[in-house]
Amino acid sequence: MSILIRGGTIVNADREFRADVLCEGGKIVAIGENLQAATATEVIDAGGQYVMPGGIDPHTHMNLPFMGTVTADDFYTGTAAGLAGGTTMIIDFVIPDPKQRLMEAYKTWRGWAEKAAGDYSFHVAVTWWDDSVHADMGTLVRDYGVNSFKHFMAYKNAIMADDEVLVKSFSRALELGAMPTVHAENGELVFQLQQALLKKGITGPEAHPLSRPPMVEAEAANRAISIANVLNTPLYIVHVSCAESLEAITRARSKGQRVFGEVLAGHLTIDESVYRHPDFDFASGHVMSPPFRSKEHQAALWQGLQGGNLHTTATDHCTFCAEQKGAGRNDFTKIPNGCGGVEDRMAVIWDAGVNTGKLTPSEFVKVTSANAAQIFNIYPRKGTVAIGADADIVVWDPQGTRTISAKTQFAKGGFNVFEGRTVKGIPSHTISGGKLVFKQGNLMAVQGAGRHVDRPAFSPIFDALGKSTKLAEPVAVNR
Amino acid sequence: MSILIRGGTIVNADREFRADVLCEGGKIVAIGENLQAATATEVIDAGGQYVMPGGIDPHTHMNLPFMGTVTADDFYTGTAAGLAGGTTMIIDFVIPDPKQRLMEAYKTWRGWAEKAAGDYSFHVAVTWWDDSVHADMGTLVRDYGVNSFKHFMAYKNAIMADDEVLVKSFSRALELGAMPTVHAENGELVFQLQQALLKKGITGPEAHPLSRPPMVEAEAANRAISIANVLNTPLYIVHVSCAESLEAITRARSKGQRVFGEVLAGHLTIDESVYRHPDFDFASGHVMSPPFRSKEHQAALWQGLQGGNLHTTATDHCTFCAEQKGAGRNDFTKIPNGCGGVEDRMAVIWDAGVNTGKLTPSEFVKVTSANAAQIFNIYPRKGTVAIGADADIVVWDPQGTRTISAKTQFAKGGFNVFEGRTVKGIPSHTISGGKLVFKQGNLMAVQGAGRHVDRPAFSPIFDALGKSTKLAEPVAVNR
Amino acid sequence: MSILIRGGTIVNADREFRADVLCEGGKIVAIGENLQAATATEVIDAGGQYVMPGGIDPHTHMNLPFMGTVTADDFYTGTAAGLAGGTTMIIDFVIPDPKQRLMEAYKTWRGWAEKAAGDYSFHVAVTWWDDSVHADMGTLVRDYGVNSFKHFMAYKNAIMADDEVLVKSFSRALELGAMPTVHAENGELVFQLQQALLKKGITGPEAHPLSRPPMVEAEAANRAISIANVLNTPLYIVHVSCAESLEAITRARSKGQRVFGEVLAGHLTIDESVYRHPDFDFASGHVMSPPFRSKEHQAALWQGLQGGNLHTTATDHCTFCAEQKGAGRNDFTKIPNGCGGVEDRMAVIWDAGVNTGKLTPSEFVKVTSANAAQIFNIYPRKGTVAIGADADIVVWDPQGTRTISAKTQFAKGGFNVFEGRTVKGIPSHTISGGKLVFKQGNLMAVQGAGRHVDRPAFSPIFDALGKSTKLAEPVAVNR
Amino acid sequence: MSILIRGGTIVNADREFRADVLCEGGKIVAIGENLQAATATEVIDAGGQYVMPGGIDPHTHMNLPFMGTVTADDFYTGTAAGLAGGTTMIIDFVIPDPKQRLMEAYKTWRGWAEKAAGDYSFHVAVTWWDDSVHADMGTLVRDYGVNSFKHFMAYKNAIMADDEVLVKSFSRALELGAMPTVHAENGELVFQLQQALLKKGITGPEAHPLSRPPMVEAEAANRAISIANVLNTPLYIVHVSCAESLEAITRARSKGQRVFGEVLAGHLTIDESVYRHPDFDFASGHVMSPPFRSKEHQAALWQGLQGGNLHTTATDHCTFCAEQKGAGRNDFTKIPNGCGGVEDRMAVIWDAGVNTGKLTPSEFVKVTSANAAQIFNIYPRKGTVAIGADADIVVWDPQGTRTISAKTQFAKGGFNVFEGRTVKGIPSHTISGGKLVFKQGNLMAVQGAGRHVDRPAFSPIFDALGKSTKLAEPVAVNR
Repeated sequence: MSILIRGGTIVNADREFRADVLCEGGKIVAIGENLQAATATEVIDAGGQYVMPGGIDPHTHMNLPFMGTVTADDFYTGTAAGLAGGTTMIIDFVIPDPKQRLMEAYKTWRGWAEKAAGDYSFHVAVTWWDDSVHADMGTLVRDYGVNSFKHFMAYKNAIMADDEVLVKSFSRALELGAMPTVHAENGELVFQLQQALLKKGITGPEAHPLSRPPMVEAEAANRAISIANVLNTPLYIVHVSCAESLEAITRARSKGQRVFGEVLAGHLTIDESVYRHPDFDFASGHVMSPPFRSKEHQAALWQGLQGGNLHTTATDHCTFCAEQKGAGRNDFTKIPNGCGGVEDRMAVIWDAGVNTGKLTPSEFVKVTSANAAQIFNIYPRKGTVAIGADADIVVWDPQGTRTISAKTQFAKGGFNVFEGRTVKGIPSHTISGGKLVFKQGNLMAVQGAGRHVDRPAFSPIFDALGKSTKLAEPVAVNR
Repeated sequence: MSILIRGGTIVNADREFRADVLCEGGKIVAIGENLQAATATEVIDAGGQYVMPGGIDPHTHMNLPFMGTVTADDFYTGTAAGLAGGTTMIIDFVIPDPKQRLMEAYKTWRGWAEKAAGDYSFHVAVTWWDDSVHADMGTLVRDYGVNSFKHFMAYKNAIMADDEVLVKSFSRALELGAMPTVHAENGELVFQLQQALLKKGITGPEAHPLSRPPMVEAEAANRAISIANVLNTPLYIVHVSCAESLEAITRARSKGQRVFGEVLAGHLTIDESVYRHPDFDFASGHVMSPPFRSKEHQAALWQGLQGGNLHTTATDHCTFCAEQKGAGRNDFTKIPNGCGGVEDRMAVIWDAGVNTGKLTPSEFVKVTSANAAQIFNIYPRKGTVAIGADADIVVWDPQGTRTISAKTQFAKGGFNVFEGRTVKGIPSHTISGGKLVFKQGNLMAVQGAGRHVDRPAFSPIFDALGKSTKLAEPVAVNR
Repeated sequence: MSILIRGGTIVNADREFRADVLCEGGKIVAIGENLQAATATEVIDAGGQYVMPGGIDPHTHMNLPFMGTVTADDFYTGTAAGLAGGTTMIIDFVIPDPKQRLMEAYKTWRGWAEKAAGDYSFHVAVTWWDDSVHADMGTLVRDYGVNSFKHFMAYKNAIMADDEVLVKSFSRALELGAMPTVHAENGELVFQLQQALLKKGITGPEAHPLSRPPMVEAEAANRAISIANVLNTPLYIVHVSCAESLEAITRARSKGQRVFGEVLAGHLTIDESVYRHPDFDFASGHVMSPPFRSKEHQAALWQGLQGGNLHTTATDHCTFCAEQKGAGRNDFTKIPNGCGGVEDRMAVIWDAGVNTGKLTPSEFVKVTSANAAQIFNIYPRKGTVAIGADADIVVWDPQGTRTISAKTQFAKGGFNVFEGRTVKGIPSHTISGGKLVFKQGNLMAVQGAGRHVDRPAFSPIFDALGKSTKLAEPVAVNR
Repeated sequence: MSILIRGGTIVNADREFRADVLCEGGKIVAIGENLQAATATEVIDAGGQYVMPGGIDPHTHMNLPFMGTVTADDFYTGTAAGLAGGTTMIIDFVIPDPKQRLMEAYKTWRGWAEKAAGDYSFHVAVTWWDDSVHADMGTLVRDYGVNSFKHFMAYKNAIMADDEVLVKSFSRALELGAMPTVHAENGELVFQLQQALLKKGITGPEAHPLSRPPMVEAEAANRAISIANVLNTPLYIVHVSCAESLEAITRARSKGQRVFGEVLAGHLTIDESVYRHPDFDFASGHVMSPPFRSKEHQAALWQGLQGGNLHTTATDHCTFCAEQKGAGRNDFTKIPNGCGGVEDRMAVIWDAGVNTGKLTPSEFVKVTSANAAQIFNIYPRKGTVAIGADADIVVWDPQGTRTISAKTQFAKGGFNVFEGRTVKGIPSHTISGGKLVFKQGNLMAVQGAGRHVDRPAFSPIFDALGKSTKLAEPVAVNR
């Protein structure tokens, strides 16, 4: 089957232009004015609408095992919800237990992902270190299409990577041409603050942000940046949530360092007052890390996107139902961390970003799709509407509106942090791998239709880094 | 005639890829693997070479009248020299005398430019203000393809624009969808410092940088940025030469303000010691404003390009011969300001930027071509190797070397600030408007072959600015 | 008469210590434990209280002529109100009309000040330039005890100093060893914004802050700092009201530049919502320039005091009654600019600063007295409780409370921007020139008891500046 | 015996003034004009000279045990050398081995110090953690006059404190009213860089700075600052050596955080080229951590002192002889870290700071004496020339010159990093505890004459911090 998108305005990262788009065999095969449709072709009327590369959400956790249970969305429901929101690819995380072989964990996650309705790929977490980790990183990069490794600087006594692991893993990633990424929070401080709060009898969700103030995040961001600077590796920082972390990134970038920042749709639009809500289900439903922040941080994060110091937008989609959240009713540290959003990210950012003049449509494409594709080296297969690219496309109706609600969403978990928000600017059609999977509110996702996307190592930035060795040979001395 | 470029690696701002390029009728008509050449086609073997959009130098002064004489390069020799260096388009400046109608000056410059060998366009300077200036700005934007206006904050008692002119002209530009640009130096400080130096008997070229210290530039940059911020206009700052100006831009951009910065090849690579050279011809040959700076500023400027806080590279090409420079032998303030470079910019920046790992090839294309095309709204006609774009292409030999010298250059003036510098990475072929105009050191520029490039108003950034009004209606008060 | 203050804790800028204080002949003559009182001595029991140097308000406008009328407080009522609040000295402003000789204006103001109840001195404004201004600056410094000159960067078409005046006056001040000071707002931008607002029909006090956004102030602050940097003069910026101006100061200071910042009690505690109040008298009563700002600026200003980037606190005391304010009922640009505060500054800053832990008591003394005395070179005659110093002392009751109100204040004008604020920490006694002038709420100010305080030129900072010439001789060239 | 210092200019942190000074019984007992000398009094003619509080070096290591040997200077020779240079007090370090009780180590060091010729006190290092450390910190503060604790963030596998120790020890210090201090270098990065360099065969002293680049220090400084911010403790960072660390301090201070910075005389004046010297003894003689840096860092550090972002100057005096340094002849990581300077600090900083106009004499007193006394809470007993203060005084001859050399110094070790530097401005007399101990080049130090100086807890800054609790109670929630 082929699909012809007719009459729309294509928006890519570099420009907007009027053209029709023809998709065949899962690829975009023609772009031009007045393209003719073959008999078998489905025609989408995109008049008055934008035709954009499908969103890439570089930060999700589908099917995540947690304390004997698992997140509400698996790879099928999660990717399907993404398709309903215009997101055609996710990058999820393989998270080995400490002492577990990376390859073993990787294969487990790959198995879970086979039911995905949209395309996917995996960052692999380095949660411990020995020779097998060193070896498996090589195997994953060379043979399994992995080009990024994740490090949790939080979660002491669990999956936290200390400086030794960070240094060794960043160095190894550099050898392999893979991108190190970090969850930046100082796990020791979080742990001590949690204990102090519990000791004071502050046990509810209102304690969650108090245990993770902005400086806890900024410290870790700055530390990871410093290590990357010394080792001459690039760095990608996930879910930057506060002005202070952003400042650390901005400082480094202004000195020419290759640091990239990701921001979540939630951190851009939701403030920390939610944790003081008297309804435990509401308050705990918002518990994720880093927590939502006060409004001045939101303003700063938008400025980060505008000024090019933040690059991608994501969701950290990780849904738990109220019963699961209830595990922390008497101890906020036991509330499973996670919120949804994969279905809503594109519309929330369009509404709050493009409609207000903060971002141009091309900048929207950059931060929802193209930049992620470039940083994780799958561009131009993904991230652009161009001949030869995968036919992952969203047709965007800038006049369409929707009121977000857990009641009407496709994602599971029964909760939505954007509940009640009416957005203007929504997908009218989503095409994934050349198939029409969402049309005017109707989701036609197919379980198992998604493919794993191999991501090659050595994005162009590595070539440049290779030429600018920092640990230079000293001048000759004669002794 | 058609041209087929075969076997090269295309470098655009967003990626590199192997493909052949076919040019016909002045346009790029096909890009793909194994393109077939028609009988009449000239074939260029680009094996082992890069195929990039021709350079755009957004800051030149060809044929500039000065004290009864005129710069050494006119629009023919200047653009021809550009072609020899891989630069296929310049944006020059119309500079009306105070009280002169803008339209009159514009037509004069258009006349001079008819002999150009490469494409060109004009920024128009606003050097004074009355209703006619307001009117002519409108005419120029609507009818003459001008979308940028220049303001000199230096040159007191001549063409300096004071705050009143800046405010009025920036506001008018915003209405018209045109970009305000500034030469940022505080003219009052320069004037007073010049007088103080002359009074102290310091009259040679060594006084030139002393009369224009970095803070003189940073003050003006910050002032222009502040005015643009208050009025909600974008801003483009020409020839950023020092860390302090760059910091002003970086601060503004980190707050989301739409400010763009240009840097000259000379400021990236030459330091201020040249002004203390005992040979007057050598020292005065380097006199331009802002002056060359100490080495730490060069490091900062490269970091600005890497971090995305500087966007374009230019030359301020404005050549005077030794006799003309000699007018200031006894008074440095009378040395005509200007240096060349349009022929050397691409190779100097490649050599100092790409060969050292500071920039990737795609970043090189951004800062030498694509960004200028986007900021001045002629993208994708210019600035990319894409089907439908003008066939302005440089085939770049990364292994080729050249030792720059006034003796071997095509540009006039008999002086070269890069004299003796051996660069690796040079153009092997330049195609301008679909014609091969430079091949392996041989220049085949044709006088008059260049065309004026109309630049439409209202680049996408203006749409966003229009939605984010800053001088908001106050909340209703009931009085 | 002598006064013995017994049992209190002396607070100076460098430390707190328990000691009695004996004042005789207008001076402090003894400090020690268990001082004995002579028969004729008045004894003040300062048990549980602090004994601090009297406040210095370095920014007031008493008896200011305005549009045919004059401010509500003259030098008697204004200084008396200061004494009631623990402020024993003011530095007011001589403001010559353009073209008026500085000496003439100075003598006029000196005449007005003769009725002052507390000590006073004058900054002299440079509002225009010719040789007489140059000469009068010298006379004032050498013969009249003036060591600071004020420059208004706002108030276009009136007293605004353009860059030429700034450069010439700053240079002259440096020769004379006098401190340049500026009111930092870009007068051109204010003027254009005012016109734009009036044209849009926004004519009430709510337009006032819209016509003077933070960037208008920050631009001017940065410009003055840059000029001072280039000329190698120190600089004092009055009434810093916003984060962006403070950042300019902080940047300069972090580079070692000698820049000092003053902040008003009002800017530290009042936000801009007052201008949107429906009662014109209330809203217009708050009209001053720079205007009050949003709350995040207040937080920044306190941080400036804590971090040592702001140095003095003042009030810009300039009181107009409701009838005078009414002149701008239909045009906010005609509302006379000014608010009171000389009576309240000390208590407001103690309450908001010391009681909250933002400042230590010694830091309170620095920012209310000692720093002003040092910057304006009258230390240790003023600004410290030390033997030999003027007996200008406030006995501070940290447990005392007062609810500020125009109804109960000593100052004139019938309005108070701190209306209704209850402060904890108030003066119990004020001693001025060795006389007890305020006691437990009773004011005993004596008209004419205040003296002019001559301020010598060349504070120590000038010695250092003299050694660090910036416009250095270039290295020798041989030509 | 009493001493009368006649005819000099007293320089304190707040001002300079002409007065005589009379010392009796180890204290300053009178300050005034024309003081009369009793018969028994020794009179020092200070005409044309400055009379300043004796220097306090807050960072020395006398008698430090190292690999079975000990530093060249013990407490007698080290403090005596200090007296010769105008430094009358040191604060040294007790460094327990991991697992060693703090009290045991403290008593050992106190024993070694009994031979000191000048006054001394001790910071105590926290190099590990258990309940005994918690207990001993309390004992030391309450009973032994310790109010500061040191943490080494470097020296992995030895005395490095990880984040857990930092958090626990900082918290404990806050409870006790004691100042946490840190040696800021990321020990993990240093270790990995050392291994990498050795592996590459770079084994000489030239590898030392390569293994400790500025970002290694800046990371740790920022981390310690962040921890202090979160815990609401003050912080003192020893030997700040680079621009990036200073920036971290400056950022924190500009936000109002109570962070203090120390800089060494060596880091202010010596650059890293010393490590590339072909003579191993010379190069290794300069090995200390952090290493000397390139010249732009020196400029930044001076600016830090000028702008008030650095507060104290020290030496880290820790002398090893050539034989000891030779232990690292084949492996730079085995070169004992340490350089001298306690004898030279005052003169080097006066010459490079005051003579050049960077600092005023009062600022010199601040950074060599008064600030250390205030931060470590022994002011005004130390740090000022005032009645009642300890008679620790240096009479400073601003015209005197000396060429620094190991050959003529009093300190041991046979090496001087300032070798050959001629300074203008030297002590003519030093008075310690009321005794004349140095006179015109003659040292009359008395072994054992020095006393331990108890430093009380809870400096004024702690009161303020106590009022500004950051881990605030959340607003009440009703659940």
